[in-house]
Amino acid sequence: MYRTHNCGELRISNIDNEVTLSGWVQRVRKLGGMTFVDLRDRYGISQLVFDENSSEELKNKVDELGREYVIKVSGKVIERASKNKKIPTGEVEIVVDTLDILSKSDTPPFTIEDNTDGGDEIRMKYRYLDIRRNPVRSGLELRHRVAQEVRRYLDSQNFLEIETPYLIKSTPEGARDFIVPSRMNPNQFYALPQSPQTFKQLLMIAGCDRYFQIVKCFRDEDLRADRQPEFTQIDCEMSFVEQDDVLNTFEGMTRHLFKTVKDVELADFPKMTYADAMKYYGSDKPDIRFGMRFVELKEIVGGKDFVVFDSAEYVGAICAEGCAEYTRKKLDALTKFVQKPQIGAKGLVYVKYNADGTFKSSVDKFYAQEDLAKWAEATNAKPGDLILVLAGDKAKTQSALCELRLHMGNELGLRDPEVFAPMWVVDFPLLEWDEDSNRYHAMHHPFTSPREEDIELFNTNPGEIRAKAYDLVINGVEIGGGSIRIHNTELQKQMFKHLGFSDEEAEEQFGFLMDAFKYGAPPHGGVAFGFDRLVSMFGGSESIRDFIAFPKNNSGRDVMIEAPSMVADDQLKELNLNIIKVEQED
Amino acid sequence: MYRTHNCGELRISNIDNEVTLSGWVQRVRKLGGMTFVDLRDRYGISQLVFDENSSEELKNKVDELGREYVIKVSGKVIERASKNKKIPTGEVEIVVDTLDILSKSDTPPFTIEDNTDGGDEIRMKYRYLDIRRNPVRSGLELRHRVAQEVRRYLDSQNFLEIETPYLIKSTPEGARDFIVPSRMNPNQFYALPQSPQTFKQLLMIAGCDRYFQIVKCFRDEDLRADRQPEFTQIDCEMSFVEQDDVLNTFEGMTRHLFKTVKDVELADFPKMTYADAMKYYGSDKPDIRFGMRFVELKEIVGGKDFVVFDSAEYVGAICAEGCAEYTRKKLDALTKFVQKPQIGAKGLVYVKYNADGTFKSSVDKFYAQEDLAKWAEATNAKPGDLILVLAGDKAKTQSALCELRLHMGNELGLRDPEVFAPMWVVDFPLLEWDEDSNRYHAMHHPFTSPREEDIELFNTNPGEIRAKAYDLVINGVEIGGGSIRIHNTELQKQMFKHLGFSDEEAEEQFGFLMDAFKYGAPPHGGVAFGFDRLVSMFGGSESIRDFIAFPKNNSGRDVMIEAPSMVADDQLKELNLNIIKVEQED
Repeated sequence: MYRTHNCGELRISNIDNEVTLSGWVQRVRKLGGMTFVDLRDRYGISQLVFDENSSEELKNKVDELGREYVIKVSGKVIERASKNKKIPTGEVEIVVDTLDILSKSDTPPFTIEDNTDGGDEIRMKYRYLDIRRNPVRSGLELRHRVAQEVRRYLDSQNFLEIETPYLIKSTPEGARDFIVPSRMNPNQFYALPQSPQTFKQLLMIAGCDRYFQIVKCFRDEDLRADRQPEFTQIDCEMSFVEQDDVLNTFEGMTRHLFKTVKDVELADFPKMTYADAMKYYGSDKPDIRFGMRFVELKEIVGGKDFVVFDSAEYVGAICAEGCAEYTRKKLDALTKFVQKPQIGAKGLVYVKYNADGTFKSSVDKFYAQEDLAKWAEATNAKPGDLILVLAGDKAKTQSALCELRLHMGNELGLRDPEVFAPMWVVDFPLLEWDEDSNRYHAMHHPFTSPREEDIELFNTNPGEIRAKAYDLVINGVEIGGGSIRIHNTELQKQMFKHLGFSDEEAEEQFGFLMDAFKYGAPPHGGVAFGFDRLVSMFGGSESIRDFIAFPKNNSGRDVMIEAPSMVADDQLKELNLNIIKVEQED
Repeated sequence: MYRTHNCGELRISNIDNEVTLSGWVQRVRKLGGMTFVDLRDRYGISQLVFDENSSEELKNKVDELGREYVIKVSGKVIERASKNKKIPTGEVEIVVDTLDILSKSDTPPFTIEDNTDGGDEIRMKYRYLDIRRNPVRSGLELRHRVAQEVRRYLDSQNFLEIETPYLIKSTPEGARDFIVPSRMNPNQFYALPQSPQTFKQLLMIAGCDRYFQIVKCFRDEDLRADRQPEFTQIDCEMSFVEQDDVLNTFEGMTRHLFKTVKDVELADFPKMTYADAMKYYGSDKPDIRFGMRFVELKEIVGGKDFVVFDSAEYVGAICAEGCAEYTRKKLDALTKFVQKPQIGAKGLVYVKYNADGTFKSSVDKFYAQEDLAKWAEATNAKPGDLILVLAGDKAKTQSALCELRLHMGNELGLRDPEVFAPMWVVDFPLLEWDEDSNRYHAMHHPFTSPREEDIELFNTNPGEIRAKAYDLVINGVEIGGGSIRIHNTELQKQMFKHLGFSDEEAEEQFGFLMDAFKYGAPPHGGVAFGFDRLVSMFGGSESIRDFIAFPKNNSGRDVMIEAPSMVADDQLKELNLNIIKVEQED
């Protein structure tokens, strides 16, 4: 037997027990005639003692030990002379009688400590050593816990977990598919699913009523930071529901997760329309942990010969509480921030509402004190506050003001990762205009239902049609999104027409789903959550990679196993494939 | 709101409630002025009534209804005049006030009934309609339930569910990989995992201690009946364990599943060595729901000038209780059975132990009554029993006798699908000789540990080495298997050498795992269960396809979505691939 207890288990109540432990050598310390070894496993650390009474054989073995050796020890639990209050096992130690070295270890390429000396690249190459570190391992434990609670909740709500296939059919819409050549069907290819969207709709038509799955999805995209070619989704669909049924169900799930995983009780989730989210936060995923809402000033800033404002489509302001004392240097830094290419504003106008009730602004040349007082009134500013104003093209300026607001939120410490502000953004536009192809695209996907009262706009102003589509946003991060689907064949045809699909194209790409709709489709809708993102939010981190056991790098490579790699010519021949040789760079 | 209740929910206690239901029209029956509609959803069937008091508008709408229409109705629950005791809602019906047709349906291509008129092929093409049928839907519900209970149990035992990657590296060993061309890494390919074997071992080296996953695996094999190119595995691994720790843990899990899913209490699982399984049952997956063990007769049948037995390597018998009365016709049928090419015996010898104590055999010419009495003694036969004997080459004859035994078990009703006889088969051979390559192959996989006491046989008789490998067998079906792994680099090298790997080959194929072993590998072992097979056993069926939502056919095709399919030339170009055109047959 390798152990009677794990390394995180022994307490004062175990004193005098004869125990056997196994684990990794974290640290060896010599102190006079004594040797102390910290023994580590997933559950914790236990201190082992070898003293002058130890046999020569035992002492010799201890001298062999190095970091990360795997050993098995037996001995008696005693009370420690000097206790370590920082760890649960810190009141006891084990006086070792016998020691077996189960595996030796070369010196690891970086230290297995919470704060390691290893850089990103080497830690990825030796990911199995990185996972031994508490921060990484506890990220995986968190992921496990969230997954179990998701299932527990959805099971309790009558959802069925149903596996959909991974070898499916390639469709030209949307992002690029990964494809898989078929040997048994020469010259044909499977595709890996970008999401189980069509299958979950088929399961509703199949009468499954409530479906979920925690499932891998695949997108062959050029990887932006923190994107993975394979990622995990909590995928859900419900029948005989309106939008509010879906929102209530998944608000319930989210609340359950916060309660069970983080012991946080969340209040009711506010709902905000897409239009309001853009108007007040310049974003469809507002961080509402703090206020600082946008105020439009266009109406009250005009006619003072300030051409920047007069010529602007949009003038928007935020009020940063208590920042009137900002120095010139700080204000310059803010201007530089908004002028960064990825933010893209031309400049920044500020108004300090001084404690004495006067105003000092960067546009004093154009605006009198009573003008600025009107701005203060509009933005609800008080003496001591700082008003920041951006102007220009509406969409771009809102987006820049959004970044400025988040930046100020960070500066003022208003974005505590341990505070959670969930919300639903609803009434997304059904369609968005695509400049390149000069036609409307589905903002969500072509099966999303418009709101009934907006359907007549198809013929007059399609861009104004609101969809029954919604996103769950927490702390400014889109955690999930979904929609009520079209279940009516006629409306679906109309939708395809407006998206510029010919009947033939619609048939070729979505034929089997359209066929299925002919046999009695129930009203249905659903949602999909980014599981990697959800877990990283629970873990208080912005990087999803820390919560994936074996992530890929920005080139889609697994540097540990060296994948992808060349394959044997025979393999390609069997698949009836030739490769067109490309010069490799390195 | 689409419903206040589902279609399986209403009871006598709901009488006088005003309710709203939604679902599919299962059946419309007219009876005088009344119309009865059976409304179906996942949860059950409710009876709707439209009578002479219904409005003309309502009557007209009811006349429109056809099978599989999706409707929403509101009305009052009343007690039925003639109750249907067969269904839980059979005591009540709903007198409908309002009816909305939510979706119409074309006439489905087969009847949506427990016993459908649809053949296999059409049901696969319209799988979403097939799933509406109770037997298919309840198979998916069973699968869901088993999956939840697997996770609940393993979570309670400190296992972490950890997702391993799907885009991995191709290895030439074992079955064929599906490969996935990489666009970002030109001319390189990922492979889809045949199992997460190496990753779970890395997770043990990473200190995760206990891992599991319910995970899709992929094998590009020519499909035998009831094999799928993608299949699901319950994959598990544990650190610091001996074989018995693994067996006890998964015996516990199996017992938990039987208890929670089928309300069956299982006794302790017997363990049988591979050698005994072959000796007594001629199979490494014996069905021990019944006895009829093999008895070797070679020693007592010789020297009587019966050349068939005298020249045979092996003479084996089974005793079929109470079958002495078998007619000539039945015995001929048994002979034909064993002579079928897939069974392959030359002939069958029988001995009837008559009720009067005499013997009648097919070899009376060679054997006297006292000879046959010895056979009866050896096989424990009693008057009234029938002894069946096969002879020939040992392996082939044992295999044929195994088939005969199972056949007799079926004939005698000894293989009740509602009786469950689990067992562990242990001590599998480590290596098996491969005639083609003229060398030993790993019977399980190259990381399986030999039993310590057998290691010295590497130099004398490698075929005799027993592995720490085990299978869970239930009712003659292999449900899972696994092994204790080698965690010692030296032993692993020795193993590779005996398997005929050069150091370079071992390094190329398993380099990253061998590297990992250098940094302190704990003793570890695990098991993998065929989830599709496990669920189908719980469902009392031999076909796994019924328990997969969207299975593929024997050519690896999904006939519903028509995958695999041709892809656009652009897609191949981006991947730097040319296809070698193959003439299509159809």
